Amino acid sequence: MEQRGNIVSFRPDVRVVDCTIRDGGLVNDFFFTDEFVKKLYAANVAAGVDYMEIGYKASKDLFDESKFGKWKFCDEENIWAIVGDKNNDMKISVMADVGRTDYKRDIVEKSESAIDMIRVATYINTVPAAIEMAEYCKKKGYETSINIMAISNANDNDITDALEIIGHSGVDRVVVVDSYGALVPEQIRKIAARYVEMGDKFHKQIGIHAHNNQQLAFANTIETLRLGVSFLDASVGGLGRGAGNCPSELLLRFLKNPKYHVIHLLDFIENYLEPLKSEGLTWGYGVPYMLTGSLNQHPRDAISFTKAHRKDIKNFYVELLEKE
Amino acid sequence: MEQRGNIVSFRPDVRVVDCTIRDGGLVNDFFFTDEFVKKLYAANVAAGVDYMEIGYKASKDLFDESKFGKWKFCDEENIWAIVGDKNNDMKISVMADVGRTDYKRDIVEKSESAIDMIRVATYINTVPAAIEMAEYCKKKGYETSINIMAISNANDNDITDALEIIGHSGVDRVVVVDSYGALVPEQIRKIAARYVEMGDKFHKQIGIHAHNNQQLAFANTIETLRLGVSFLDASVGGLGRGAGNCPSELLLRFLKNPKYHVIHLLDFIENYLEPLKSEGLTWGYGVPYMLTGSLNQHPRDAISFTKAHRKDIKNFYVELLEKE
Repeated sequence: MEQRGNIVSFRPDVRVVDCTIRDGGLVNDFFFTDEFVKKLYAANVAAGVDYMEIGYKASKDLFDESKFGKWKFCDEENIWAIVGDKNNDMKISVMADVGRTDYKRDIVEKSESAIDMIRVATYINTVPAAIEMAEYCKKKGYETSINIMAISNANDNDITDALEIIGHSGVDRVVVVDSYGALVPEQIRKIAARYVEMGDKFHKQIGIHAHNNQQLAFANTIETLRLGVSFLDASVGGLGRGAGNCPSELLLRFLKNPKYHVIHLLDFIENYLEPLKSEGLTWGYGVPYMLTGSLNQHPRDAISFTKAHRKDIKNFYVELLEKE
Repeated sequence: MEQRGNIVSFRPDVRVVDCTIRDGGLVNDFFFTDEFVKKLYAANVAAGVDYMEIGYKASKDLFDESKFGKWKFCDEENIWAIVGDKNNDMKISVMADVGRTDYKRDIVEKSESAIDMIRVATYINTVPAAIEMAEYCKKKGYETSINIMAISNANDNDITDALEIIGHSGVDRVVVVDSYGALVPEQIRKIAARYVEMGDKFHKQIGIHAHNNQQLAFANTIETLRLGVSFLDASVGGLGRGAGNCPSELLLRFLKNPKYHVIHLLDFIENYLEPLKSEGLTWGYGVPYMLTGSLNQHPRDAISFTKAHRKDIKNFYVELLEKE
């Protein structure tokens, strides 16, 4: 596997994608205050972050608006209320789940939208539907990405086939998503190298979205970066479902591009993220998440275990083993 | 760099060294209860852990016995009270700091000792003194190791020279110690590869002791393992100074040798480690430790920041930058 770039230089093709609201919304059902989102937006702009993924574009036919905060749906006017005149270099991204987005109704022309990039989240067996949605968005004028989730559960032939049809599609980017936090560097490097090979052939950028179940989110991010991955997902304080994501502040300290300024994220952590923790929101590495991750299982059982304030970690392990 | 072993097999040369009491003692001045140490000993034996490092062999001329728990000094009778008849395969290790151990007085003949391995901790400029101490211990009958601390601060020529004289010494092992948690996988792989090359030439085993300042302790451990490192330091729950160590439970879930049984560590975590946390003992990853680690600074400032319950993380970063 060929190395691209080295530890003291930077690759100008690298982009940091902040997922704090989008993935963090899975922890609090997207009930962030407007102030929190506005301050995060300002902090990301000042820190030099390239994209801010502000939430999901979920269909209101499927999800009850009263049960979720506004970032589950990302109505245009709500985004505009945050971004103002967008007089800066940071782009706005939203995620759209295959089968959960009424894209023909809810995705407007890019020229009328506050959104720059739409990332279609899919499992490997729904990649054709994801391509259809992404190509629709591309025609509307957006940058597009297909994020193949739970890649640790996909088999090699399916990955080959999926990458081939994505390669021939009009999609701009593909993201390796380790939803379960199951992969160690040795494994995710091999997967990412296949994505990068496809990306080179078809001129598509490759991204990485890692989870921290095994304390490997940052390691997996920078190890795939070395191999040519260029779109790096991160979130402030690692805020995200279960064990959370690659912490933005760790990533920005590592990246050598002088356009990144971590201090603005530290300010946000001190004044907005730590208070969220004090109020009782919980996320980040813990033994229950390590167990589901290392067993290559969905984190839902670890989330339930944590929410129920259970402490019987040994019983929990036995329960997980019985599900294998 | 040549890979040794792969993800689905195991290398029979690999050994896990539990550092829970030794490195964890730096958090609570070694004031562990006898019950805690006995239960950990039993858990490690049942889990298949290969070595348990039970503390330091510090000189009572230099350190006041009333200010530290017994594992700062590791008197023989105190170790025997834990290990009983030692009717199992796990070996006992102690650490001895260069210049802080009265080894000619305090290290008895192996035949009279509960200790199996003595690891000499040294900075790179005191390696000759470390060799003298280790060779003394070797003659007494012990397995020996030299642990070169703060390796992220050593220059390349000094590492070359140190490895050469250690190679020609009677020492059994050498450990790569990333005391500051400063190294990313790309860096520590290169350092470890040099140790492994020396080890191959002189028939010495190489070990790794990683700190979790950048959430890389586990990643760095398994990435150097791939390259031939075989003595892997870990601690239950990652208990250790500052950001702590590579968590044993994460490592044992990863290692494929069927002799390891993680469930006994989970039991210990549930019943002994979590209560320690509830009582207020703090360790593990946090932004202050990330900042010292990524700046390649000693964690002492981050420890003070945390102990003082300071929250002004932005000011703290500016203070650290001024020390560069």
